[in-house]
Amino acid sequence: MSAATAELSSIPIGLDEIQRAAERIAPHAHRTPVLTSQALDRRCGGTVYLKCENFQKVGAFKFRGALNAVVQLGEAERRAGVITHSSGNHAQAVALAGKLLGVPVTVVMPRTAPGVKRAATEGYGARIVACEPTLEAREAAVAAEIARHGLTLVHPFNDWNVIAGQGTAALELLDQAGSLDLVLCPVGGGGLLSGTALAVKGRRPGLRVVGAEPAIADDARRSLQLGAIQPANDPQTLADGLRTSLGPFTFAVIARHVDEILTATEAEILEAMRFVWERIKILIEPSSAVPVATLLNGQLDARGLRIGVILSGGNVDVEPLFAALAARYL
Amino acid sequence: MSAATAELSSIPIGLDEIQRAAERIAPHAHRTPVLTSQALDRRCGGTVYLKCENFQKVGAFKFRGALNAVVQLGEAERRAGVITHSSGNHAQAVALAGKLLGVPVTVVMPRTAPGVKRAATEGYGARIVACEPTLEAREAAVAAEIARHGLTLVHPFNDWNVIAGQGTAALELLDQAGSLDLVLCPVGGGGLLSGTALAVKGRRPGLRVVGAEPAIADDARRSLQLGAIQPANDPQTLADGLRTSLGPFTFAVIARHVDEILTATEAEILEAMRFVWERIKILIEPSSAVPVATLLNGQLDARGLRIGVILSGGNVDVEPLFAALAARYL
Repeated sequence: MSAATAELSSIPIGLDEIQRAAERIAPHAHRTPVLTSQALDRRCGGTVYLKCENFQKVGAFKFRGALNAVVQLGEAERRAGVITHSSGNHAQAVALAGKLLGVPVTVVMPRTAPGVKRAATEGYGARIVACEPTLEAREAAVAAEIARHGLTLVHPFNDWNVIAGQGTAALELLDQAGSLDLVLCPVGGGGLLSGTALAVKGRRPGLRVVGAEPAIADDARRSLQLGAIQPANDPQTLADGLRTSLGPFTFAVIARHVDEILTATEAEILEAMRFVWERIKILIEPSSAVPVATLLNGQLDARGLRIGVILSGGNVDVEPLFAALAARYL
Repeated sequence: MSAATAELSSIPIGLDEIQRAAERIAPHAHRTPVLTSQALDRRCGGTVYLKCENFQKVGAFKFRGALNAVVQLGEAERRAGVITHSSGNHAQAVALAGKLLGVPVTVVMPRTAPGVKRAATEGYGARIVACEPTLEAREAAVAAEIARHGLTLVHPFNDWNVIAGQGTAALELLDQAGSLDLVLCPVGGGGLLSGTALAVKGRRPGLRVVGAEPAIADDARRSLQLGAIQPANDPQTLADGLRTSLGPFTFAVIARHVDEILTATEAEILEAMRFVWERIKILIEPSSAVPVATLLNGQLDARGLRIGVILSGGNVDVEPLFAALAARYL
């Protein structure tokens, strides 16, 4: 029995939990639209349905999982508050979930995190605890805060309630797009891909589920090949949401339910992002461009297929463009 | 009788022509979506419905008017072909309309036009005739081409078929958004605002129609005040689609049917564009940001109102941002 199959018996959630998560988050989360693009279909030869989680609250699917975790806490846990560690979309997602539900939120963030991300998280009312930018310092800071204040951790991906929440995007996509052959989404820590796989295979077992990650951060692909979690070693991909390794929960789901992991180079990711911006006129972040890149670079043969793609988020620093416009016109 | 009222008796189109234009363009034009944004509503105090013509074919409302003009040509005119002068969205709109309908298209473009715009227009199969970047050179080049090849001019805005086509966006908006108090759109040459005013006042006479233009290109506002067309004198606003003066047709409609013209500074336009990009996650060009800017800068008191805004297009040069990302990650 391989390491992978050893993990597989311990998946405690499925379609039912994702459907309940969908009901739980419905009062607060957007049912995001699904867009199509003739330009994209012509380029890849398939029919592509883009599930626009860039239009989700906080600009990313992360709000689904964070809300589904925080909303299930008991009264005492809510009063004590929650904690997470992230400098990205998950931090803002937990902060907003806490704000909407009246739960205090603490976010441990490396002191090197961009000021704009820190400000956005504080804007939702979260308390920031800065730490040194190392894994050890982060874990120590989280442990100290939990010990001192009795906080509940909302992990960015290795949490079954978070995974169930992320799966709600795929459920909506299946309803909105009708019959599909394949669902494609990015994979970093694996929360979105795990939730997507559980939702899709639970609803339609014959439908393919494929993950996409940067070629220089292909730890998920290697983890599947080797049957054990491979560390990511902080790859400096522009898809900054996908630098993380899988966790035990997400690895278990992905090993059992995901058909394939594809990759794209940094140049391909940038080209795909630009294609979506220029031709579809929506802002997506680099992580969202990775699955699109696998449609454009030939890794995924899309010809004749109906493909659902989860565009994970739209949070990208547009300062260079606006600085150039301001310099020219103001 | 003022100059303005002298013109008013000569408006040969109304709601009927716009409804017929809508039927005519339906096989080719997108019925673009209407988006809402809690962030925008909170900022301005109203409820705003964004008609997303940035998602229209060629990335701008211009396709509606160009198609409605070209599709009505007789057999001989179609065979001879059409001509227009533009270095922007109208050029691409006529080029695509001609391509779809099998009509040859000639575009007179200043030789200083950005290579990317020239390439985009050529990409739709149009023939480009370069001219010196002056009004006289442009008019001479158009006249010479018409004399030599018997082409039909499709003017960017001073053409009743073009105006009727542009009005179809507002018709859709009224159907999609339900009851509104006010419709707001940018004004450059006035094709969009004229068509919008005819559609809105034809359908619901009590509804306010408001134009928005850059403060440094406020020729439409001054034209209304003075009762005669005021020239724009090539103002270097970043809203490059709004540098044009009104024409006799658009002035006549605007003088009779538009309630007010508001303005925004360059800094306000840039801020509004960034707000839409960052908070709503869609690409809009600076011209589209001008009406949004009048909601954010207090010129339009939006409190308690239901406001439809036509986002005119999404064609903006994103090169500075992608160059910065490429320099950092590739």
